[in-house]
Amino acid sequence: MCELLGMECNVPTDIVFSFNGLRHRGGRTGPHADGWGLAFFEGRAARVFLDPSPAAQSPLARFLSETPIKTLLAIGHIRRRTRGDVLLANTHPFMRELWGRHWVFAHNGTLPRVRRRALGRFNPIGTTDSEHAFCYLLEGLRSSFPGYPRRPSELWEAIAALGGELGQDGTFNFLLGDGRHLFARCATRLCHIIRKAPFGVATLLDDDVRVDFSAVTTPKDRIAVVATSPLTANETWTIGRPGELWVFDGGELRATLSSLA
Amino acid sequence: MCELLGMECNVPTDIVFSFNGLRHRGGRTGPHADGWGLAFFEGRAARVFLDPSPAAQSPLARFLSETPIKTLLAIGHIRRRTRGDVLLANTHPFMRELWGRHWVFAHNGTLPRVRRRALGRFNPIGTTDSEHAFCYLLEGLRSSFPGYPRRPSELWEAIAALGGELGQDGTFNFLLGDGRHLFARCATRLCHIIRKAPFGVATLLDDDVRVDFSAVTTPKDRIAVVATSPLTANETWTIGRPGELWVFDGGELRATLSSLA
Repeated sequence: MCELLGMECNVPTDIVFSFNGLRHRGGRTGPHADGWGLAFFEGRAARVFLDPSPAAQSPLARFLSETPIKTLLAIGHIRRRTRGDVLLANTHPFMRELWGRHWVFAHNGTLPRVRRRALGRFNPIGTTDSEHAFCYLLEGLRSSFPGYPRRPSELWEAIAALGGELGQDGTFNFLLGDGRHLFARCATRLCHIIRKAPFGVATLLDDDVRVDFSAVTTPKDRIAVVATSPLTANETWTIGRPGELWVFDGGELRATLSSLA
Repeated sequence: MCELLGMECNVPTDIVFSFNGLRHRGGRTGPHADGWGLAFFEGRAARVFLDPSPAAQSPLARFLSETPIKTLLAIGHIRRRTRGDVLLANTHPFMRELWGRHWVFAHNGTLPRVRRRALGRFNPIGTTDSEHAFCYLLEGLRSSFPGYPRRPSELWEAIAALGGELGQDGTFNFLLGDGRHLFARCATRLCHIIRKAPFGVATLLDDDVRVDFSAVTTPKDRIAVVATSPLTANETWTIGRPGELWVFDGGELRATLSSLA
């Protein structure tokens, strides 16, 4: 199993605090030592930092935690291998282009039956069930719409339906970003928090770090953070229900859809 | 105009020496201050480090030059903007998946007429002529072969033909990698060197650095390096002729094809 981390905001925000909470689970406070990745959107484009080595010891992870990159949308993942070798090609998040924008995907769980599903124009580079599912999901979107849907809710519903379909193949907790939204599906374990004014002080569970968000934010800031399990000790996280798809936009939970087949 | 850097080897090699020669042209010894990128292949997968800020001052560029990543195939680019704003989406190298492998592309030159060309399944995320050309080139390959060609020379010839076709739209020096080959087309400026035993000492043109390759190599190592202009002062670089496509594999120049329409 793995750990997911997503952030979606209404003002560019750095993810260092949350990422530090996560990365120590990559080989120090947790067993997720088979690589990690972190994707940052800038408009329709994303850049993904990937490392097949443990996040807790990775020089690149330390670099990112020391060099804040502000973004409206980020997706991170630390991996504990269940399917597929420890290789760059098997390191989440995965990225593809569809409709002239990047799509970024990270998965927690296993989908033992997903390889029965035939693929179309998107093909896995590595050998994970996760990347196969991502390719299937994107092909499902591509074949449903001629371009990026004008009505966002059409897209949300299509992703919820595809999430439910793929959820039949195993355990399908995922994060998906398209540069506009963060989609987060809960199969077994996922939680979120919306940080907004009045901001307080948060204490990481996995690191001896506290941050006073009121010192680094303005009253209008809204930051949604999604994670496999709560990252902080003194905040109230909303726990996902199996088969729920959350849609975040502008740092708000815009919709909660049923994502069951 | 921009500066290209490619490396293709028969043993995993770090590109730090050559990258340091290039990155100082990004805002210090050269005017190419509108972003940079560096892609590293690991088998069929690549990871791309991108930064829309000048390479000479970029903390990420410094990190990479201090943290060697060994690879058989790397493609780098530093940008001086001619078309398209300074944005992540416009930062080379560009990457797409085709036939279950990553393809990485970087361009030097401008293609004022390229946007007349209709695209297929690959679409630009940014606004550069370069990414449009890359999308057209990949669609040309995709529509010519059902999968990765069994006979490599068929692929080489197709890339040479597409390079010649796109070369009619302007100036088309490019590097293209598929995890197996490095393709390098010369329109106006491109050169290469094959480093092999007996290895000597090389001195960078753009930085006060010398390296004794004999201390960091074995007698069997072969390293092909391609660049817009020579990176070292005391080695003999082979200068490309307009309309030539070089194909590197295993650190050797495997073929030189005519790439003219």
